[in-house]
Formats: sequence, C-alpha cells, structure tokens
Amino acid sequence: MKALLIIAHGSRREASNDEVRRLVIDLKARAGDDGFESVSCAFLELAEPSIPDAVDACVSDGATEITVLPYFLSAGRHVVEDIPAELDIGRRRHPDVTLRVLPYVGAESGMRDLILEMVGQGRA
Amino acid sequence: MKALLIIAHGSRREASNDEVRRLVIDLKARAGDDGFESVSCAFLELAEPSIPDAVDACVSDGATEITVLPYFLSAGRHVVEDIPAELDIGRRRHPDVTLRVLPYVGAESGMRDLILEMVGQGRA
Repeated sequence: MKALLIIAHGSRREASNDEVRRLVIDLKARAGDDGFESVSCAFLELAEPSIPDAVDACVSDGATEITVLPYFLSAGRHVVEDIPAELDIGRRRHPDVTLRVLPYVGAESGMRDLILEMVGQGRA
Repeated sequence: MKALLIIAHGSRREASNDEVRRLVIDLKARAGDDGFESVSCAFLELAEPSIPDAVDACVSDGATEITVLPYFLSAGRHVVEDIPAELDIGRRRHPDVTLRVLPYVGAESGMRDLILEMVGQGRA
C-alpha cells in the first residue's frame, strides 16, 4: 500500500498546523488518482505527530511504500539535515518499508508561475 | 514606481538564501508584465537585507508603491506577527510610500495543484 506523507515545519500557532492538516484533507480527496491510499502529515518540531511517529502510523495502516514531500520553500538546514535524520529513524524502525523523498515544494519549477499569478491578481 | 518585495525566512545555510535571490532574478525577467520595475528580497532573520533595510532600498530606487509577498507556506507567527511588525518599521520611515501585503504563498489555491503535480511526477 502506498502512502503520501507531507512534512511541515510546525508552529506554536495551532491555526498554522491546522492549515497543514486541512491541506492533507484536500489532498486525500485527489491523491487517490496517483495511487495513494493514505495521505497524512508530520511536523519537524512544535507540533504532533513527529516524523518517526507518522512513519509508524503509516506502517500500522499497512503502508509498504511511503512517499515523503517536504513542505518547505527552500533547502535550509531543516530540509538538508533535520528531515533526513528524522526519516532515518523511521527507516531503522521499518527496514522493509520503502521511503522515497520528493524534492521540497520550493524546488518545483511551477512555483514561479504560482507567485506571478498571485502578484498579477494583487495588481489591482 | 512599483516595486515587488519577496520576504523569506532566511537560513544559516547561505545556499538556501541564494535560492531566494535566484528566485528574484527569475521573477525580475517576468514581473515587468505586471508593471513592476524592480523585484528584490528581504529576510526575516539570519540573512541580509532585513525587511526595513529592503524597504529603504526600494524607496531609494524610486519606489512609490511596494507590493510585499511573504514567501511562507503557512500562517505561523512569522507571517501573522513578525513580518507585519517589520513592515511597520518601513511604513513609519516612509509614510508617503504605499506598502501592500499580498497573502503568503501557501494561501494560494494553486498550491494544491503544484503538490499534486510533484506527487504525480514522483510516482515512478
């Protein structure tokens, strides 16, 4: 079973974490087309679940392949060091499960178009 | 003169800050269509220029209207409290300049499509 795991930074402001949870709900409705039976999220810090706990939960739900999307805009230390280290904990706990990490969201070329769309809408 | 100012978090990892600067270069080539004569960036912390310094620079370059895009994915404290406080410093320094703040990037509805595109490409 394929699972999609969105990793966000986490915030002291719970409304911000709830935004990520709402994103997961929206993606659940559409990621089935890409063969994902489950979509969930994890937070690097300041919110729950942690990345290793979220990996545990995916595996408990039957995941054999987990695709990880770092919901970050640039490749700072969180993306380059912290997230890989947390994922390694998950890998050690579940050596039989495939864990694939996609590029972080800001690396997607479509981000430029998204920004220009926002700027154009705000042109007034 | 209209200026576009991209505000990012800033990172101890200089390559991450350079990503934002490259984004600005890319946007410069295209934001002219939306009437922006200048595009620049500022960092909330850990990198230069600061937000008030970047506002100063826009005004020195002749900006009379600055459109601010918070390059953040969710409305944590940085977006809700810290960026508005920094922008207020710029407003007090330049009361005759219009400072308009767009929604943060993660609030854009197209973000869902962007993520699904990444997930689809990574489907393998």
